[in-house]
Amino acid sequence: MRLLASTDYALRVLMLLASAPDDARVSVDRLARALGGLSRNHLHKIVQELTALGITRTARGTGGGVTLAVSPQTVRLGSLLRQLEADQPMVECFRPDDSACPMLPACRLRTMLGAARDRFYESLDAFTLADCASRETLTDPP
Amino acid sequence: MRLLASTDYALRVLMLLASAPDDARVSVDRLARALGGLSRNHLHKIVQELTALGITRTARGTGGGVTLAVSPQTVRLGSLLRQLEADQPMVECFRPDDSACPMLPACRLRTMLGAARDRFYESLDAFTLADCASRETLTDPP
Repeated sequence: MRLLASTDYALRVLMLLASAPDDARVSVDRLARALGGLSRNHLHKIVQELTALGITRTARGTGGGVTLAVSPQTVRLGSLLRQLEADQPMVECFRPDDSACPMLPACRLRTMLGAARDRFYESLDAFTLADCASRETLTDPP
Repeated sequence: MRLLASTDYALRVLMLLASAPDDARVSVDRLARALGGLSRNHLHKIVQELTALGITRTARGTGGGVTLAVSPQTVRLGSLLRQLEADQPMVECFRPDDSACPMLPACRLRTMLGAARDRFYESLDAFTLADCASRETLTDPP
């Protein structure tokens, strides 16, 4: 079972933002550094996606950067991951277009897999972004 | 959330074998046909993996083919998927070698993700291969 690399990085970005003191704006350079040198291009796409979901906002110019647009207590992790992984079919027959699997009409496994996926997300919905953020997370200079 | 394509096909192979009348051997050609034209090479690798796990056995020569080595009632789906996905890290920090993520020491998310993954597999452990096999599955001629 694998999550998208972009989901992995999006989660880290949000943990970093939730850990910033007094919800200060965090520059893309600082985020990239804290993410082990992720390319600015990749990071920009991730922030764009989070902003499109209404979770982050960005400000340009001096003192600009990225910040959370919502309280971290309101971001349920399961719901967040469902959104970030929305375009990612678990197996071929979960693709929104027609699956080519000739076994589909008689398949019972698909329902079982879908239910298991729901348990995965429900487990994460017990936590919010605030639960996994830590003041220790963002320790390098601004 | 995505499973490996090889896991997807391995599950289909096992459902086909469990659906074969009187546990008859099924030829690789027939399996490939029922899997929508999957290459014999790819299929061979999948059967090899299942045989290495002790779930299938193969016989060569006339009347040869693939069959289940165990009763489908004994194959718990969660346990099976854990084995098939064993080498697949959910996110970077689940890799067996050292993760490069600088947030790891203070990270609480990793434990939450691991617990959610356990819920996924536990949900599937409520079912066996026999539960998802169907006599309607293998309908083409031998």
